[in-house]
Amino acid sequence: MDKLDVPKRLLLGPGPSPVPERVRHAMAKPLLGHMDSAFLTIVDNVQDKLRTVFGTQNPLTFPVSGTGSAGMETSLVNLTEPGDVVVVVEQGVFGQRLADAAGRLGAKVVSIKVPFGETCTLETLEHTLNEHSAVKLVAVVKAETSTGVLQPLNGWADRVHNRGALLLVDAVTALGGLPVEVDAMGLDVVFSGTQKCLAAPPGLAPMTVGRRALDRINRRKIPVSSWYFDLAAIGRYLGQARAYHHTAPISMFYALDEALSLIIEEGLEETWARHRAVASSLWAGLDAMGLKLMVPEEHRLPTVTTVQVPEGVDDGRLRAYLLDHYNIEIAGGLGPWAGKIWRIGVMGQGAQVSHMMTLIMALREALDDQGVSVPSGLSALQDSYRKRGRG
Amino acid sequence: MDKLDVPKRLLLGPGPSPVPERVRHAMAKPLLGHMDSAFLTIVDNVQDKLRTVFGTQNPLTFPVSGTGSAGMETSLVNLTEPGDVVVVVEQGVFGQRLADAAGRLGAKVVSIKVPFGETCTLETLEHTLNEHSAVKLVAVVKAETSTGVLQPLNGWADRVHNRGALLLVDAVTALGGLPVEVDAMGLDVVFSGTQKCLAAPPGLAPMTVGRRALDRINRRKIPVSSWYFDLAAIGRYLGQARAYHHTAPISMFYALDEALSLIIEEGLEETWARHRAVASSLWAGLDAMGLKLMVPEEHRLPTVTTVQVPEGVDDGRLRAYLLDHYNIEIAGGLGPWAGKIWRIGVMGQGAQVSHMMTLIMALREALDDQGVSVPSGLSALQDSYRKRGRG
Repeated sequence: MDKLDVPKRLLLGPGPSPVPERVRHAMAKPLLGHMDSAFLTIVDNVQDKLRTVFGTQNPLTFPVSGTGSAGMETSLVNLTEPGDVVVVVEQGVFGQRLADAAGRLGAKVVSIKVPFGETCTLETLEHTLNEHSAVKLVAVVKAETSTGVLQPLNGWADRVHNRGALLLVDAVTALGGLPVEVDAMGLDVVFSGTQKCLAAPPGLAPMTVGRRALDRINRRKIPVSSWYFDLAAIGRYLGQARAYHHTAPISMFYALDEALSLIIEEGLEETWARHRAVASSLWAGLDAMGLKLMVPEEHRLPTVTTVQVPEGVDDGRLRAYLLDHYNIEIAGGLGPWAGKIWRIGVMGQGAQVSHMMTLIMALREALDDQGVSVPSGLSALQDSYRKRGRG
Repeated sequence: MDKLDVPKRLLLGPGPSPVPERVRHAMAKPLLGHMDSAFLTIVDNVQDKLRTVFGTQNPLTFPVSGTGSAGMETSLVNLTEPGDVVVVVEQGVFGQRLADAAGRLGAKVVSIKVPFGETCTLETLEHTLNEHSAVKLVAVVKAETSTGVLQPLNGWADRVHNRGALLLVDAVTALGGLPVEVDAMGLDVVFSGTQKCLAAPPGLAPMTVGRRALDRINRRKIPVSSWYFDLAAIGRYLGQARAYHHTAPISMFYALDEALSLIIEEGLEETWARHRAVASSLWAGLDAMGLKLMVPEEHRLPTVTTVQVPEGVDDGRLRAYLLDHYNIEIAGGLGPWAGKIWRIGVMGQGAQVSHMMTLIMALREALDDQGVSVPSGLSALQDSYRKRGRG
């Protein structure tokens, strides 16, 4: 038999992020049954902690039994019926994915196509809503992992609700790393993943569903086409009835419970501030090396930084160098940006200045390996690390 | 903060089953990225080992990123198109679930309704196929967890294939615990779960898809309505292209890899034999106590035993007694058998004679607590344990 061989990587790509030992140990605890009151207490605790992290009072706040994209699918399959007009902001691969998934469910998808690296303005949203009557749903990615863009959503909920539509937000690369604030922002349905800023392994998709969305679901004319992702049935397991639906991934709940505890112990705002500070130190390091960041600072995501691959540098060879010599994982680009950018994650346990210092030094060596000279004096950079960083 | 409180249960319900320490430790290893070649090697190994356990050469043999029911949904959403005639054998709650899920996808469901505790005969299948033309799919549960019935499938594939239909089998409570033998039996699509006889935590749904089923999927007229469960896209991640689809639940793959290694180290036939022998020792114990088993031995599932709650015994109180005094979990009935039966699992790590002895002694005490006298001389029972058991 082969033995399970797991090299120790420093995961600085766009997820999964490194998982703290405390979380991995929690995950390894003995199994409980999914109807055991001891497990149901853990489910309740996870729901409470998720409400804190999402900034919501929504009773239906829970992790879907699948990875982040399962949260997307759960949102769409419950909120749309065939023929519904759904506006999707396509500003990157994950916006395109929302459009693809909604189309498969029979929705009439109206796409707002935004060039990679840019945001969608409130004016563009309003223009689209004016042009299309009877929009039922607007779907948008808050933190687009493929481009490194942070989409502002101020004023969106009002505009969307005024048309009688709902606002669905992909917060996969946002939750735990930057403000999401579901209730304050008036977001109707928000989904995320565990393997990004929450610092848990992939396997669950935290989501929250507000009252307006529940009303919409209760008024559906046809049953939800997915048995597995049917929110009404899942709600009966989570609620007073505790009616069996499917077997929850028990061990992943242990991991998520512990990961959420870590965030709440650190403080939610402190966690956001750490992500922001460590991202700034990364940006300073990349600047000092003369590398070009793809997104202007105003709309730059703290959790995933996109960097242009310099002229003459082989993307794959550089990433292999980082992996082989330093066990560091960063990612390449997706879609039109494949081969043109690197994506560096500053997420969860990975959001530590020491990791950014290691990465910058390794990156410099890897560029040097390809004959690309970068500024040799890094003292200014090191000063910036001392000033900005902690962790 | 509350600390994660996990009592140590002896899980003898119909799943999750107890997970060996080796498997839980493997799960706790550091994370790898889902595109890391070290992780892709683990994916390949898991696929190879699943082929052994399923008894198949099917290239598309892999774990779906969700619990067992996600395997059901993946099977149905890829194999059916709206309007397709689907024959479903409803011989228990999980057969009913197949019918429900197929109906939500727009299939015309033809149900073969079989009373709880009975099997569907080959004659009944033939009769149904004769009555309905253009059947596209026949779906049946091999091991019905709600009734404890083992459905024989000899001759089924030929009958189904002769009509141009495909055979879909739910092997959730079968895989690893009794022969499934996908290729030898001609089964087209089979799904399972990890938390039963495979002795891994819930969170993945192993499945295998044969050539006929792939041909059907390739000839679809409309896209698969589920983005998350789209087999064509999942196949591109598993295949040579290694095209990113969704982030796999990395840690669950570690657990499944280790759990499959344990089965292959023991030997697949030896594992089946152990489940069978331990089930026999359980049955002897229940018989000796005068309890009535719900299914005649001929069609009795070795992996889940269903037992009638004796007259005058309070089901909930008895199960609470086992949990409170012995930390033993068994389950009650589902659907029409709710409150009327107990379900005892003999699965994975739980399939040990010593556990059955503990259960029988605890059960006797719990019945005594309710004033129900059971035969006091248990020497015959103990002899039977000595003869049949190991473990």
